[in-house]
Order: sequence, then C-alpha cells, then structure tokens
Amino acid sequence: MKIISRRDFLKASAAAGVLIPAGQALSRVAYAKALAPVQLPKPQTTGGNPALGLLEKRSSSRDFAPQPLPVVVLSQLLWAAFGINRPDGKRTAPSARNRQEIDIYVAAPEGAYLYEPRGNLLKPVVEGDIRDLTGTQPYVKTAAVNLVYVADTAKMDKAPPDQMALWMGADTGLIAENVYLFCAGEGFVTVVRALIDRPVLAKALKLRPEQTITLSQSVGYPKKA
Amino acid sequence: MKIISRRDFLKASAAAGVLIPAGQALSRVAYAKALAPVQLPKPQTTGGNPALGLLEKRSSSRDFAPQPLPVVVLSQLLWAAFGINRPDGKRTAPSARNRQEIDIYVAAPEGAYLYEPRGNLLKPVVEGDIRDLTGTQPYVKTAAVNLVYVADTAKMDKAPPDQMALWMGADTGLIAENVYLFCAGEGFVTVVRALIDRPVLAKALKLRPEQTITLSQSVGYPKKA
Repeated sequence: MKIISRRDFLKASAAAGVLIPAGQALSRVAYAKALAPVQLPKPQTTGGNPALGLLEKRSSSRDFAPQPLPVVVLSQLLWAAFGINRPDGKRTAPSARNRQEIDIYVAAPEGAYLYEPRGNLLKPVVEGDIRDLTGTQPYVKTAAVNLVYVADTAKMDKAPPDQMALWMGADTGLIAENVYLFCAGEGFVTVVRALIDRPVLAKALKLRPEQTITLSQSVGYPKKA
Repeated sequence: MKIISRRDFLKASAAAGVLIPAGQALSRVAYAKALAPVQLPKPQTTGGNPALGLLEKRSSSRDFAPQPLPVVVLSQLLWAAFGINRPDGKRTAPSARNRQEIDIYVAAPEGAYLYEPRGNLLKPVVEGDIRDLTGTQPYVKTAAVNLVYVADTAKMDKAPPDQMALWMGADTGLIAENVYLFCAGEGFVTVVRALIDRPVLAKALKLRPEQTITLSQSVGYPKKA
C-alpha cells in the first residue's frame, strides 16, 4: 500500500470517528454485525499514485486561447486519448468486446483529419475550418482543436440493438476522460459536449451512413486571465 | 512544453521523415499547401505528464485474487472514480450539464452499498454477497468489489429522449476510465462490462423505476501467476 501511510490513515480515521484499523478488510469489519454504514477515511488526493494528482486537477473549462497546438502535442494528445499501448494493438481506452469502434476526427483551423493510430497519422478529410460545426457553443470556434468522436456501427454488429447507444456512449466517455487527464497533466483546457448538430457535422466530415457522431471535445491552451 | 525535449523531437521527426520543426503550429504547416497527411511524431509515453505513464500501463484484466480491499483503498478508489474534487461540489469526472446523475453501488462480499461522495460514506443497501449478479462472467464472484454504475434518469429531465442512453453511457465511461487509471497507478486489476442481467441486479439493489443500470466494473488484487 503506497497510497497512505499507516500513521496518516490512523490520524484520518480518528478524525472521522472510524474504528477500523488500517489494512483490515472491509468485509471482515462489516461481517461483525448487520450491514452498517461505513465512514470512509478522507481520501488522499496526492501521493504515490499519479492518478490522484491528475484527478484532483481535472476540470472542464471553456476559456480557450486561440493558439494552435503544435503537432508534437497533438501526437501526445491523440495517443493519450485512444492510441495503441500494447504490441497486440490494444488501446489506451477499452471498448465493448474490443471492437475499437470509435474513430477520432480532429477539426483544426486548416481542416479536418482522421486520426490513424496504427500509422500515427492524421489523414486529411476536408480542407477548411469546420470547428464551428463541432458544437453549438461559441467557444468551439476558438479552441485549437475539436475532437469529434464517431462510432462505426458496422464494427458493432454483435451489440444488442437496444444497447448500441449506451455502448458507443460509454466507449466514447472512456476515451474522453483520458483526454481530460492528459490536459490536467499538461495545463491544457478541455470540455466535452453532447450538443451537436449531428446531421450538419456528419455531412461536413463526409461520414458514411453507418457512422454516428457521439460527442465532441475541445482542447486548447487556456485563455490568459 | 514539458512533454518532449526539442532534441528528442527532432530525432523522432527525422526518423519518421517529418520536416515540421518542433513547436511550429500544425495550422501554419498545413496552410502551406493543400491539406496533406500529417505524420505525427512518435508519442512519448512517459515524462513530465503523469497521465502518460498511467495510460501506457492501462489495461483490462479478469484475473482477480480473492482478497478484499481495505477500506482505505476503497475510499481512494471511489474518490478517484467520481469523488468531489472542488469546493463547489464538482467531481472527478464530468457529466452532461453537470447533472451528476450516475451513482456508484459497491457490491462487496458482505453486502452492497451506495457511495455517498458528500459524506464520504458507504450507505448499506442490501446484506449478503450479490457480486455474482453484477455480470454474467464467472470472474465477477472473485473480484474484491464490483462497482455498479446506475443512472438516475430523474436527474436527466432536460436530456433529449433520443440522447438519454448515449449521455448516461458517456457519463459512465468517463467515471470508469478514472477507475482504470487509478488501478494502473496502484497495481490493481479491473475490467468494465456491459453484459449484465439488469432486471435481476436492479431488483437485488432495490432500484427505483427511474434508475437504470449502465455498466459494472470489477476491481481487485491481481491473481498471482
């Protein structure tokens, strides 16, 4: 256990009125009598686990400065989002039955691209600035890039029809949170949204009928106060 | 830019045949001629940004050892998942229109609880081991805890009806990825799943009609090889 020292835990427990010694399993404690409320010790938000510090800082912000992202940053960002992190081609986020059905389109000032994780490549999709089509809010025009998450339903042929929307939503959320934590670690601002004029954006991105836009996420430098 | 040194970037760029100098914006490069493919530099997967190291290690595993989680770990885990990280009550994961509609139920060996982030409390829901109801796969019985994500649709009154499933799926995925990264940082194993007998589990958790089970996620110690 590297999360919290025993001494700190006992201090935190005492403060919270908890009588459960550190390291004792929840189950053994609770078996002692009928299921009772468990006052959890105050969580540490920093320490050995780097996730805790990132999560402490994670937030949504819509205050974007207009500077574009250097390609080196874009490479890191897209790898963090849904890059390949294992030799077998598995990714930084899970997907239902490992179908990897979510594609990331990148709307940048000069045009829109499709992220190809295998070649670590941005494939051109359309020339020109379509950032304003990636959301209904004014800030989307300013953010350096808008990621557009698109589910390829042709890859989801085994999903129960009544579960399709839930699955593609979940698989998108798993990716979007990676972007949040990457941005928390690097000082970028980001916000994800569901309010999108999907038919208009689908046309602009030349999507096939079996492709469904799930969410969009803006990423950029923070506006200076 | 703390992600990659200029020297390392130039080396990586040269290896990849990229002619874009480090720090030059994507847009200025691409404006030079018609939208062309962009070979991204090889992403660094470690470095100043702690998200990168976590994402490099992130994976799904179903090989759970049976040891229960100490309460101090459960506190960290649940805070990471969807705890409060700001004085205004905002959370470690975003939610559509900040409705915070996802509740986390915790199926532990002795019973099931509801996580209350405000009091940092586990409220008893039902006594007894219902872990086997949180999924159709055999491993769910072994994992120390199974988190069950439940959307309270009463809090989603402003969502367009055709977007409900997508929104609750996305909001669950955003939380579930926090759990993945927490586990990557701490050496726990985890896997999220959508295949659940929802009516049976909803009854066991005494859910109200407006509550919908989205996903479930097992967390525990890794089985020793």
